[in-house]
Amino acid sequence: MSNLNAEQQAEIDAARAAQATTRRPTVPALEEILYSALPVLDHGFVRVIDYFGDDAAIVQAARVSYGKGTKKVSDDRNLIRYLMRHRHSTPFEMCEIKLHVKLPIFVARQWIRHRTANVNEYSARYSILDREFYVPVPGQLAAQSTANRQGRGDLLQGADAEKALSAIENLSAEAYRVYEELLNETRDGTTIVPGKPGLARELARMTLPTNYYTQWYWKVDLNNLLHFLSLRADAHAQYEIRVYAEEICKVVERWCPIAFEAFRDYRMTGTAVSGPGMAVIKRLLAGENVTQENSGLGKREWTELMATLER
Amino acid sequence: MSNLNAEQQAEIDAARAAQATTRRPTVPALEEILYSALPVLDHGFVRVIDYFGDDAAIVQAARVSYGKGTKKVSDDRNLIRYLMRHRHSTPFEMCEIKLHVKLPIFVARQWIRHRTANVNEYSARYSILDREFYVPVPGQLAAQSTANRQGRGDLLQGADAEKALSAIENLSAEAYRVYEELLNETRDGTTIVPGKPGLARELARMTLPTNYYTQWYWKVDLNNLLHFLSLRADAHAQYEIRVYAEEICKVVERWCPIAFEAFRDYRMTGTAVSGPGMAVIKRLLAGENVTQENSGLGKREWTELMATLER
Amino acid sequence: MSNLNAEQQAEIDAARAAQATTRRPTVPALEEILYSALPVLDHGFVRVIDYFGDDAAIVQAARVSYGKGTKKVSDDRNLIRYLMRHRHSTPFEMCEIKLHVKLPIFVARQWIRHRTANVNEYSARYSILDREFYVPVPGQLAAQSTANRQGRGDLLQGADAEKALSAIENLSAEAYRVYEELLNETRDGTTIVPGKPGLARELARMTLPTNYYTQWYWKVDLNNLLHFLSLRADAHAQYEIRVYAEEICKVVERWCPIAFEAFRDYRMTGTAVSGPGMAVIKRLLAGENVTQENSGLGKREWTELMATLER
Amino acid sequence: MSNLNAEQQAEIDAARAAQATTRRPTVPALEEILYSALPVLDHGFVRVIDYFGDDAAIVQAARVSYGKGTKKVSDDRNLIRYLMRHRHSTPFEMCEIKLHVKLPIFVARQWIRHRTANVNEYSARYSILDREFYVPVPGQLAAQSTANRQGRGDLLQGADAEKALSAIENLSAEAYRVYEELLNETRDGTTIVPGKPGLARELARMTLPTNYYTQWYWKVDLNNLLHFLSLRADAHAQYEIRVYAEEICKVVERWCPIAFEAFRDYRMTGTAVSGPGMAVIKRLLAGENVTQENSGLGKREWTELMATLER
Repeated sequence: MSNLNAEQQAEIDAARAAQATTRRPTVPALEEILYSALPVLDHGFVRVIDYFGDDAAIVQAARVSYGKGTKKVSDDRNLIRYLMRHRHSTPFEMCEIKLHVKLPIFVARQWIRHRTANVNEYSARYSILDREFYVPVPGQLAAQSTANRQGRGDLLQGADAEKALSAIENLSAEAYRVYEELLNETRDGTTIVPGKPGLARELARMTLPTNYYTQWYWKVDLNNLLHFLSLRADAHAQYEIRVYAEEICKVVERWCPIAFEAFRDYRMTGTAVSGPGMAVIKRLLAGENVTQENSGLGKREWTELMATLER
Repeated sequence: MSNLNAEQQAEIDAARAAQATTRRPTVPALEEILYSALPVLDHGFVRVIDYFGDDAAIVQAARVSYGKGTKKVSDDRNLIRYLMRHRHSTPFEMCEIKLHVKLPIFVARQWIRHRTANVNEYSARYSILDREFYVPVPGQLAAQSTANRQGRGDLLQGADAEKALSAIENLSAEAYRVYEELLNETRDGTTIVPGKPGLARELARMTLPTNYYTQWYWKVDLNNLLHFLSLRADAHAQYEIRVYAEEICKVVERWCPIAFEAFRDYRMTGTAVSGPGMAVIKRLLAGENVTQENSGLGKREWTELMATLER
Repeated sequence: MSNLNAEQQAEIDAARAAQATTRRPTVPALEEILYSALPVLDHGFVRVIDYFGDDAAIVQAARVSYGKGTKKVSDDRNLIRYLMRHRHSTPFEMCEIKLHVKLPIFVARQWIRHRTANVNEYSARYSILDREFYVPVPGQLAAQSTANRQGRGDLLQGADAEKALSAIENLSAEAYRVYEELLNETRDGTTIVPGKPGLARELARMTLPTNYYTQWYWKVDLNNLLHFLSLRADAHAQYEIRVYAEEICKVVERWCPIAFEAFRDYRMTGTAVSGPGMAVIKRLLAGENVTQENSGLGKREWTELMATLER
Repeated sequence: MSNLNAEQQAEIDAARAAQATTRRPTVPALEEILYSALPVLDHGFVRVIDYFGDDAAIVQAARVSYGKGTKKVSDDRNLIRYLMRHRHSTPFEMCEIKLHVKLPIFVARQWIRHRTANVNEYSARYSILDREFYVPVPGQLAAQSTANRQGRGDLLQGADAEKALSAIENLSAEAYRVYEELLNETRDGTTIVPGKPGLARELARMTLPTNYYTQWYWKVDLNNLLHFLSLRADAHAQYEIRVYAEEICKVVERWCPIAFEAFRDYRMTGTAVSGPGMAVIKRLLAGENVTQENSGLGKREWTELMATLER
């Protein structure tokens, strides 16, 4: 794939060629893609580096909690769905995964807000960043939404779109030129003006815009990963982080297919209905004519509930 | 081993017989003991259930942080020791382990204070606890220390020791008798007085003393595990948790031998010397006659420093 | 109140008499009960020791996130309800409270599972525990539920109830007698058999059952406190922790009344409806005859949904 | 001060004018600076927004743990120093503070790595960022260190320095011009080309370099704050985050002066000496001639130890 150079691809191929025997549970569907770079955006990727646990590990952990008592009454799938439905989240913490992610800095800034994870990021204090920056494809060049203060509205068209793309590209390229000039060193290690000192890397990097790519190892348990996905694979999430979340959804589906199915049913496509909202539903089911005015709901919540009920 | 019954041992043997191939890094020395129950105290154990990462994973994570810059100058061992010495702890978080532990409730209460871990505990709301309680061996029947408010002093001897052991055993046995009577059910499921209701399990369990055994799955990253070990494998820790920590030290030595060696050198056998304490050491090295009075240290810190320096 | 001795009450009265001026926001309704012991169970209590933040602090934090953009469109109450409805939880983390809680050990063991909090517990390694243990009132002496593996069923009656209470009381009293005998010291500091060593406190305490009281300082932010309350003030929680949660609900209502109202509407009385469950509701609203068989729901989820809809 | 505009200063003055009475402990030295903006770098600041706890709260929490046993033997200062020396960290968690911080994005990216804190950040998805970017003063324009892979070396001089400053300023200004052009809106809300849509804010912001300022509310307990300060007020920290840490050190000194003094003595100016390192010190004290070769230490650790001992 194009988001890796030849040297990186060779390292990955070597890692993928290794085979060992283990007493640990393995997940063949996940092993299939282990180490491979799953491309995201124009230069980014997600790679699964390591994992442990599977659907059975969730059941095993729940059964320690529940002891012998429930062994007979529930099969694994029902138990996992029950745990998900009632937000008994600790058994899902018993599965762990480590990803290598390459992503624009402004995406990394949203991502890192999820605190219950382990991170090791590439350091621009030590090393020179590559000349890789994110430029949206035309289909993502949206105007500010007029309805939603943080969303996107209609797409920019024709010359407007071209002008915006050029502006982003030119500024990003110029920023890298300044970066190299400040370092007095190009990204392949060549000194630009011999005999002159370059600015410290930790300072020079401040000129790079947040569409530049960074990368990190990110390690997280399944429960916190699902929470991340429930927020970031959601329609309200910014497109540029959502595409990462969607790629990771496919990874989780390979890894723990029963847990993922339950997650999709109860969390991704589920709805939290308030006490007053549920009262409205019951009145509607009883055939009553309910309006916002007599519902006891605020305007915005009423609108949201009617949208959910498609009324 | 005697801390398991035949059924449990058979389950473990079956798990140990499984073999799979994996692309993930494996640690043969740890695979050797995977699932086996390592006995601790009279009925407890530690079992390794799963793991990922190894010494190389620590280096790999650090190298993302450091980027290509340092690849040539440090070999792996030096890098790991450098990270440990300077408390660059995040690369150690990239290794994860899951243990199954059986332990007395009063030990579990200390253990759970380490918050950065995942836990699933056997529930006495759902299931009946086994009749297993901890009784110290005579060599651990210590009197209250007179020097240290939380420590142990001399051993109880002869009749004093026998009397204490009997008192603990009798009370523990009587508590289980009351527990079964309240449940109106013995631990093998026999009703005691037919036709009578038993007290709810979540209530009956409150009569069991904290030397009764519980068990849990406990999952933690290597960095937080080492922090746990630095506190609990320490001479100031209560004996009954220290023996668990010492058993886990052996597990870590199998798993990540280079990291463990660095941990032992810099954290277990290391000393934090204060600024004023280091000033005293420098004056001593300069041949000066330093006393507590002219040292600038408080009495207790002075005593601690002299003990460290063996003066 | 009876859950404190005279000395403790005098200390609290002294603390309550103090007055200072501050530039910080204050909440008069919470100041009213500051330091007072709110009684729970037979010997327990909850005391508010310190706090910061209020409803306005939640709004202030959200407005940093949202910037000037939304200042005009939402008033504070609507904004707080919006945040709660959509689980935008970080602004609620900007309020913090510190409680002093006295509680039975088996309740403490459930409570401590909430990891995102700060705790300092009374140490039975250092000090001798008081002779205070929990005995349920007759109205709580329930039999094991036959419907729910972890719940309570019908109440024990007459002689059955009396016998259970006596058994709990006698065992608890006997355990304290053994505790003192092992320590060779009564709780008021009198040596029992002069010239004999007492067993170390850290060992002697293991004979006390988990209905003995402990105490701790517990500090938590409002978001994590609400999560705790959503699980522990719930009908599925064990009665003995639920009464603490209910008392804390009253505290939160004094402290942040708007946030608490939103919490009650959206979290306590709210329901999470799955995607397939919502499809059932829509079909019902369209007048369709839906049965479990044609609903696409499992048996248990169907029953739960119909119970929610009261059909 | 110049890092605020008039409107912001007026809001702060209003907040500072408020006075209320409280039963909570107050810290007059901290109240003095409450809400005031303490300037850092060219446009940044630190403001204390709220706090609870003080030195006495640390002692109070420790005394719950230790119970009555230790009440007589240690005065407060000695107890706090003992806790710090032995890393008994939980009592320090009983104090909490909330700061409002304005800081460059590249500093925010380092800061956020400290996970045990609460954060609400100004959102560039909702609102337009101000035209404020960090430009180093000439005294901070350092070259890349040749000795230390992540540090700064000698200062750039004369024309080299001027050229670097111009490059940073010009690129930063150009980036904002592009940002406004993409938004089709200036920072004061004026449309640039009427009738044309502006690019969504969440996209346009990606052109701004990481020297642009952001701001957030940051709430943390004293224990985690001291850990932050031990890393970020350290000589190895990047200058631009160190100046924030140093300003916060002054805040902590006002807030909990005894804890801060202990922190300075044992953590900031203290040294962790390894087991092998302490063996070297003992041999030196015994008058032995120790060299790196016969020391058992690696080259780098030997050099570090000798630097500490100033030999």
